[in-house]
Amino acid sequence: LPPDVDPISVKLLTLARDLQRRKARERHQLFVAEGVRTVESLLASALPVRGLLVTPDARRAPRVAALCDVAETGQVPVHEISDADLQSAADTENPQGVLAIAAIPETTLRVPAAGVSRFLVLDALQDPGNVGTVVRTAAALGVTATICLPGTVDVWNAKVVRGAMGALFSHPVITMDWDRCSSALRDAGVTCWAGDLGGVPLDALDRGTLPERLALVVSNEGAGLSPHLEGSVAKRVAIPMAPGTESLNVAVATGILLHALRPVHASAPAGGATAV
Amino acid sequence: LPPDVDPISVKLLTLARDLQRRKARERHQLFVAEGVRTVESLLASALPVRGLLVTPDARRAPRVAALCDVAETGQVPVHEISDADLQSAADTENPQGVLAIAAIPETTLRVPAAGVSRFLVLDALQDPGNVGTVVRTAAALGVTATICLPGTVDVWNAKVVRGAMGALFSHPVITMDWDRCSSALRDAGVTCWAGDLGGVPLDALDRGTLPERLALVVSNEGAGLSPHLEGSVAKRVAIPMAPGTESLNVAVATGILLHALRPVHASAPAGGATAV
Repeated sequence: LPPDVDPISVKLLTLARDLQRRKARERHQLFVAEGVRTVESLLASALPVRGLLVTPDARRAPRVAALCDVAETGQVPVHEISDADLQSAADTENPQGVLAIAAIPETTLRVPAAGVSRFLVLDALQDPGNVGTVVRTAAALGVTATICLPGTVDVWNAKVVRGAMGALFSHPVITMDWDRCSSALRDAGVTCWAGDLGGVPLDALDRGTLPERLALVVSNEGAGLSPHLEGSVAKRVAIPMAPGTESLNVAVATGILLHALRPVHASAPAGGATAV
Repeated sequence: LPPDVDPISVKLLTLARDLQRRKARERHQLFVAEGVRTVESLLASALPVRGLLVTPDARRAPRVAALCDVAETGQVPVHEISDADLQSAADTENPQGVLAIAAIPETTLRVPAAGVSRFLVLDALQDPGNVGTVVRTAAALGVTATICLPGTVDVWNAKVVRGAMGALFSHPVITMDWDRCSSALRDAGVTCWAGDLGGVPLDALDRGTLPERLALVVSNEGAGLSPHLEGSVAKRVAIPMAPGTESLNVAVATGILLHALRPVHASAPAGGATAV
């Protein structure tokens, strides 16, 4: 190594590059967060952060400087690397000169034994930006946990992490297959429904009869519900659409379905609880 | 020009490059559609198409070849250009070797004199991908027209056109300022509401009292409702969110609000019309 190169930054950089691959993330149980806002959310979360890599240019910006101060106050090492090195480890379009390596949180499906709850199941969703937005939506709408079925992009992919806008740092996301998922939900008395263009229109459902404990399966807009799930969901529900319209973006559809199927007796905001 | 260069393809290419700028789109009243699916939707729409530019490689794919046949059957000229030339005129990340130049549809706000209707107003939405998804959502949920206020990205930007997945080719989108917009809506008896984090929670609204004719204003998630609009909307409404959650993606929020505020007596799908 040349004398001015910091060996720990080289080690972190090599690790960050390695973590671009799913297998490496699974082996190390670590992921990379990119961009100012995402790294800020990460540092504000409970997840252990291994280190920050910043470019000298980025660090001159007050917001990044503040972020580095927060990290160092919390004993998180901050190392400077060149623009080219940061780009070589980054997976999102514009990492804004800052990335962090942190621990993937523990990922067991915990279903509360009783009480009103909602779960979200992602059936082979492949677009990282969509999956990030879906996870952000699930967290915002009070979903207890999101389950990723096989064929779904790894949520610890840097593009998903960024799109989730911090939601992944507190909202539980579990990867498991349909057999394990459906039996865990069944054992806990959670009913499974799926969003599907050919399902019962939302307008035909009576909110008063919604299950207290419900998991919603959402699929890739183009592909529809995976055939092996069709027989094992209790009901398929559809968002009414204008004639001639093909589909909605999957994150938009998930938001509409989760809101329409929200618990009837959830902690209603002040002002009343008349159904909309 | 070298003897093997087709002068019409050079003209179309120069025009397509020029149309990357909003001012040029406004002057020519033309826009560029990029990508196989978008160009397919465009050719299936009523909009006049000036010409297609394809790379020889792309044209070898059966789907692009079919699309070129459809164009030529409809007297739309198809010209081959190099990969580098196509990239130089493209504005989206992966134009898939095909782009089309077409006429921007006529853009007057037409409010039906009576009857149930919904309008969507975009208050300074800047992200092209989000705006495309918002327009797609509005079209799918039966909105009559979308109005873009100043500060909103031009919807004829190729990234918005692509994100809208064909919705722009039939759903009317009008650019106008708030004074003209609000007076046109007021004159037609359309009530204006806005989505706003500090508004009345959706759960506190009684669907039975929703206005028959309603325009919903949505704003940039970070910035919130523009100050000059605050005093001139009749009501601000909020999507109930989990504690500690900052916001939803604007397209997701628009979908939830438009669905929750959909007309009570709209053409209900078969099966009943119990509110969800």
